[in-house]
Amino acid sequence: MKRGNMSLDPLDSSAALKSEPLCIFGTGDLGRSLGQCLLQSGYGVVYGSRRPDSCGPLPQGAQVMTHQEAAQFANLIFICVHREHYDFLEMLAPHLEGKVLVDLSNNLKKNLYPEANAAYLQRLVPKAAVVKGLNTVSAWALQNGLPSGTQVYLCGNNEEAKRAVAEMATKLGLTVLDRGSLSAARELEDFPLRLFPEWRIPLWVAFSLTAAFFIYLVIRNTVYDYVNNGQDVSYGIMVSLANKVFAAVSLIMLSLCYLPGCIAAFLQLYRGTKYRRFPDWLDRWMLCRKQMGLVALGFALLHAIYSLINPLRYVSTRRTITSVVQELNNPTTFDNTRAWRIDSFYALGILGFFLYVLLGLTSLPSVGGSLSWREFSFVQSKLGYLTLFFCTAHGYIYGWDRFLDHSTYNWYTPPVYMLCLIIPTVVLVFKLIIIIPCVDRTLMRIRQGWERNPLRGETDDLKFTNL
Amino acid sequence: MKRGNMSLDPLDSSAALKSEPLCIFGTGDLGRSLGQCLLQSGYGVVYGSRRPDSCGPLPQGAQVMTHQEAAQFANLIFICVHREHYDFLEMLAPHLEGKVLVDLSNNLKKNLYPEANAAYLQRLVPKAAVVKGLNTVSAWALQNGLPSGTQVYLCGNNEEAKRAVAEMATKLGLTVLDRGSLSAARELEDFPLRLFPEWRIPLWVAFSLTAAFFIYLVIRNTVYDYVNNGQDVSYGIMVSLANKVFAAVSLIMLSLCYLPGCIAAFLQLYRGTKYRRFPDWLDRWMLCRKQMGLVALGFALLHAIYSLINPLRYVSTRRTITSVVQELNNPTTFDNTRAWRIDSFYALGILGFFLYVLLGLTSLPSVGGSLSWREFSFVQSKLGYLTLFFCTAHGYIYGWDRFLDHSTYNWYTPPVYMLCLIIPTVVLVFKLIIIIPCVDRTLMRIRQGWERNPLRGETDDLKFTNL
Amino acid sequence: MKRGNMSLDPLDSSAALKSEPLCIFGTGDLGRSLGQCLLQSGYGVVYGSRRPDSCGPLPQGAQVMTHQEAAQFANLIFICVHREHYDFLEMLAPHLEGKVLVDLSNNLKKNLYPEANAAYLQRLVPKAAVVKGLNTVSAWALQNGLPSGTQVYLCGNNEEAKRAVAEMATKLGLTVLDRGSLSAARELEDFPLRLFPEWRIPLWVAFSLTAAFFIYLVIRNTVYDYVNNGQDVSYGIMVSLANKVFAAVSLIMLSLCYLPGCIAAFLQLYRGTKYRRFPDWLDRWMLCRKQMGLVALGFALLHAIYSLINPLRYVSTRRTITSVVQELNNPTTFDNTRAWRIDSFYALGILGFFLYVLLGLTSLPSVGGSLSWREFSFVQSKLGYLTLFFCTAHGYIYGWDRFLDHSTYNWYTPPVYMLCLIIPTVVLVFKLIIIIPCVDRTLMRIRQGWERNPLRGETDDLKFTNL
Repeated sequence: MKRGNMSLDPLDSSAALKSEPLCIFGTGDLGRSLGQCLLQSGYGVVYGSRRPDSCGPLPQGAQVMTHQEAAQFANLIFICVHREHYDFLEMLAPHLEGKVLVDLSNNLKKNLYPEANAAYLQRLVPKAAVVKGLNTVSAWALQNGLPSGTQVYLCGNNEEAKRAVAEMATKLGLTVLDRGSLSAARELEDFPLRLFPEWRIPLWVAFSLTAAFFIYLVIRNTVYDYVNNGQDVSYGIMVSLANKVFAAVSLIMLSLCYLPGCIAAFLQLYRGTKYRRFPDWLDRWMLCRKQMGLVALGFALLHAIYSLINPLRYVSTRRTITSVVQELNNPTTFDNTRAWRIDSFYALGILGFFLYVLLGLTSLPSVGGSLSWREFSFVQSKLGYLTLFFCTAHGYIYGWDRFLDHSTYNWYTPPVYMLCLIIPTVVLVFKLIIIIPCVDRTLMRIRQGWERNPLRGETDDLKFTNL
Repeated sequence: MKRGNMSLDPLDSSAALKSEPLCIFGTGDLGRSLGQCLLQSGYGVVYGSRRPDSCGPLPQGAQVMTHQEAAQFANLIFICVHREHYDFLEMLAPHLEGKVLVDLSNNLKKNLYPEANAAYLQRLVPKAAVVKGLNTVSAWALQNGLPSGTQVYLCGNNEEAKRAVAEMATKLGLTVLDRGSLSAARELEDFPLRLFPEWRIPLWVAFSLTAAFFIYLVIRNTVYDYVNNGQDVSYGIMVSLANKVFAAVSLIMLSLCYLPGCIAAFLQLYRGTKYRRFPDWLDRWMLCRKQMGLVALGFALLHAIYSLINPLRYVSTRRTITSVVQELNNPTTFDNTRAWRIDSFYALGILGFFLYVLLGLTSLPSVGGSLSWREFSFVQSKLGYLTLFFCTAHGYIYGWDRFLDHSTYNWYTPPVYMLCLIIPTVVLVFKLIIIIPCVDRTLMRIRQGWERNPLRGETDDLKFTNL
Repeated sequence: MKRGNMSLDPLDSSAALKSEPLCIFGTGDLGRSLGQCLLQSGYGVVYGSRRPDSCGPLPQGAQVMTHQEAAQFANLIFICVHREHYDFLEMLAPHLEGKVLVDLSNNLKKNLYPEANAAYLQRLVPKAAVVKGLNTVSAWALQNGLPSGTQVYLCGNNEEAKRAVAEMATKLGLTVLDRGSLSAARELEDFPLRLFPEWRIPLWVAFSLTAAFFIYLVIRNTVYDYVNNGQDVSYGIMVSLANKVFAAVSLIMLSLCYLPGCIAAFLQLYRGTKYRRFPDWLDRWMLCRKQMGLVALGFALLHAIYSLINPLRYVSTRRTITSVVQELNNPTTFDNTRAWRIDSFYALGILGFFLYVLLGLTSLPSVGGSLSWREFSFVQSKLGYLTLFFCTAHGYIYGWDRFLDHSTYNWYTPPVYMLCLIIPTVVLVFKLIIIIPCVDRTLMRIRQGWERNPLRGETDDLKFTNL
């Protein structure tokens, strides 16, 4: 651990040949996996156990002794014990003076205790340096090889202690993120209990839209047909209706990715400055655009597969048959416009989906991380709007000449493909306005710090100077 | 290299402005690429060569001299020479005393030599500190930019030496994993020779199942039709038969991902403790679940595409034509049940495949690594069982009313879709039993350390305390 | 910052409990995001501002003062100010003596200024240690969580200064890559302005091929039909023609991935040595093979989807109808050969596409990075050639017996599927020659350093010794 006098002579000290042992309190799954991992990285490991002679199988090469004895051997002690049993540490406190205690514990629920486990530990052993951390790594992962680039978080009041733990973690191949003082311990303890927090809004939006469109379609198509024509077309719910819903939700959610950016631009243009905070709802919306887009991609994928299985379905086959019979009886000429329309419809859909997939690929952490800022913004903004344009055009061609046709409006309600074109159209119009040269130039200047009505006149030039 | 007296005054020493040169023995591809990489990171590079005046093109900025001269300039020496030619190092040994020798060599085969290359090197130059490592990085990767997060392994008996190498490697953007003492050198030398070891069992299972089902189907369908009806339906082998095989193998392999977890749970329930080791075969099985699932996903993808091209095939088109003719002659009413059945069949298949893809995406290292433990287990367990349920239901609806139909059993053998439903059904029933509240509660307690029949009575409460 | 006397006693010094503050000049977006990030990692932050009392909202916990005052508090100063406003630093120079100045600035365009921003800064404040770096990280990324494994680059003339910055960056969870002295600053400043440089050649090739084939097909099919038969088949442009173009471009680009490897092998065989450099065009070609392959995969995906929607199109449905009518009038027997041919055609296409996707997955940074060298070369070489073989066979079966049929050659021009088979066939023949044992053995020896005509006779054995 002595880093000060780094000498490269390999033979000067026997100490250099063997690194100082680390101590683990607790011989449960986590304790054993951690010990095995440490041994593999060349550390010595000493277990502290209440009953050293009956604590089950431990990794080869480790020693077991009582807590008190084990503590004497090491400066770094890992506490792999449930919080409920921390009380024994209070009695050990005199032996832990000046030691670094690493608290790896997690709770089963949020807010189970008034204070963080690590804060409680620090209170029990006030003269030790408690470091909270590594608690996001599971025993399973430790045992079966940590994936490359696994991040762990540390916090603690003592910088030296944190550095020692960080060095150890780096040696295990972990990437260490320092989250500051021990007051961040509660936040760290909540990490393993997260369940897709940033996906909640997008999933909720997707679910609401899906449910709303589904009910709307069931009433407008299935119920309508039953009431007016006495036909039972309920079988269409599984594929036809679902496919329409997926397409609509996908298109709306894709446009919802780009709407907040437009709103923000207009807000900045209206305010004439970028130095006033956006309303909270807009900030939250902007932060979940990536997840929104990925949910939209999921629905687009479903829409694509649902469309492709169409010719496999009994209903479609039958419909083809009927049309065959009709064509045979009344031979028609080939409808060139229809061929163009349908082919364009599919081509636009496919190209839109292709770009969609490209956008999705760049959201993969490892791909997105290798892009430069300009590349990322090119893909997400330029390609993104192109995708939205293709998909919206796909929707318009689907409607074609039915927008003004009375018979389209069952019970005076518009079909779903019309409803789902509203927001994308608005977004595209907004974007068109924003890229008009004079608007674009003003927005650019605002984003570089210029203010139309600088309230504090003197700060005008100041703003310009900062990145 | 002096880290002890870190001063931030940039002008105090000329030494700080130029870092100490590193030495490379060997001017082959690896030596040259490594040198170029080191120069780019601001290191000075000195090559040691047997004939310094005729050793081909070297990176700009590097110097070449004899081995002996070069060794004097640096503390860190990279040995980029084939093991067969290490003997010259024995003569150089006096000049290498106290130096750090980094052994980057690999062998062409496993177990080619009785001892690891690094151990042999250490024996030749006993007074140097040999560090084995970086051997997983290829000359090609060094020359063309190391991908972000590339892991390298180190091992060696001297901690200081390892630290110096680790620091250098970190500067090149590598993530260093310390694997302990030089005895791990053989393991490190085997790394570049690995060929998907963890994929062997899943691929072998997949291959066996595919072959078995294929032969079974050829006999049961193609040969049967030829023998009984005199029809040559051998053309079906390429697509129809293959598609059935892919679907069956995919479903079975997906259920094989979840079967070991169920077996482990029942074993723990039966034993009443989690402290007895699982049998070896179960452990090995559990470790290859991820690969098993990915192979299953591959087969599911093949099944999906094979199904989608069906309407493009000559055979299908002809069959449709025949049915058209028949329908024209005997007009039938629309079969509502059949429409429901077929649509549900496809809808379940698509949703199952969609979830399958989601599961696959979370196995990507960069995606899986960004999930919290709770998120990961939610995806792999909850979503996983949902996928299995959808896919199994997809299979049952395919069978529909043919399960009890005599004509289904050609030559008294059951069709493939029945065979492939057995294991998934068993797994789902097992899972249903496990999530019965009282069973679930017992299992939960066992997994937290409780024992039904603690042999060593006093350890009962002890177990509970450990994570 | 004192790393020399690392003591693990957590209570020895109050200094250890609070780390030294860092200073940020500039309160713009980047300054604020960086400050927030540093505060979160436990650093103290002091802002230097021209008008400390009116500089807008700053992260909680940070202090604001004049530049001069702020500079006294810290050794590390981040310059988050546009280059145009660096002049104020010249006046501050006496107060910045011995400090580390981190230049995070970027320019809007390449070559906007004669010297790099960091070099300019160093010239203004000659007695400070300027470190260029972190400029690839955006304010947005800093504020919203840096993705795991984000790489940043550093350069500077002072090793200690770079080390201090690297340590700070590591603490923020960044992976630091040292790019040497300050002369690399210009290169670093150009990084955020990159726009897919390594994708240019592949995209240009893809675009040229697509355009050429498209025009060729429009003339050969659409115009030909109009002139000779008076039919307007222009609707086919959207899907049928596009699909042929995508297939052709995909196959050619896939073979272009493997052609340079073959050329290199023949060049080495011809020259009898690996020590002569390849021509520049070959080197550049070899370097963009990965991107070439991914573009090819994109085109293959488009081809796959375009093929799958075929039965959904009006044109195809009509054609089916026509064939139905014809079949009804002239009942034909089932064509077994045709069934075999079409099924093999699709099966080969699907398997080829499947392997294509596998190849694409291994190019994902996080997947490729976890493969050993042998695994990677197995996938890219063995699987790659298998993919090429499947796809080429797919093309040959498409042609079938039309290769020698006169009616295929409209206006004496060969169809696209023939043109696109030329290069793949050549590559496969080349590969066949290379894997002939005697050729393979010679090549192997050359790649291990053997030379047929060593000009400098004495170096022969030398070459063999280097990795």
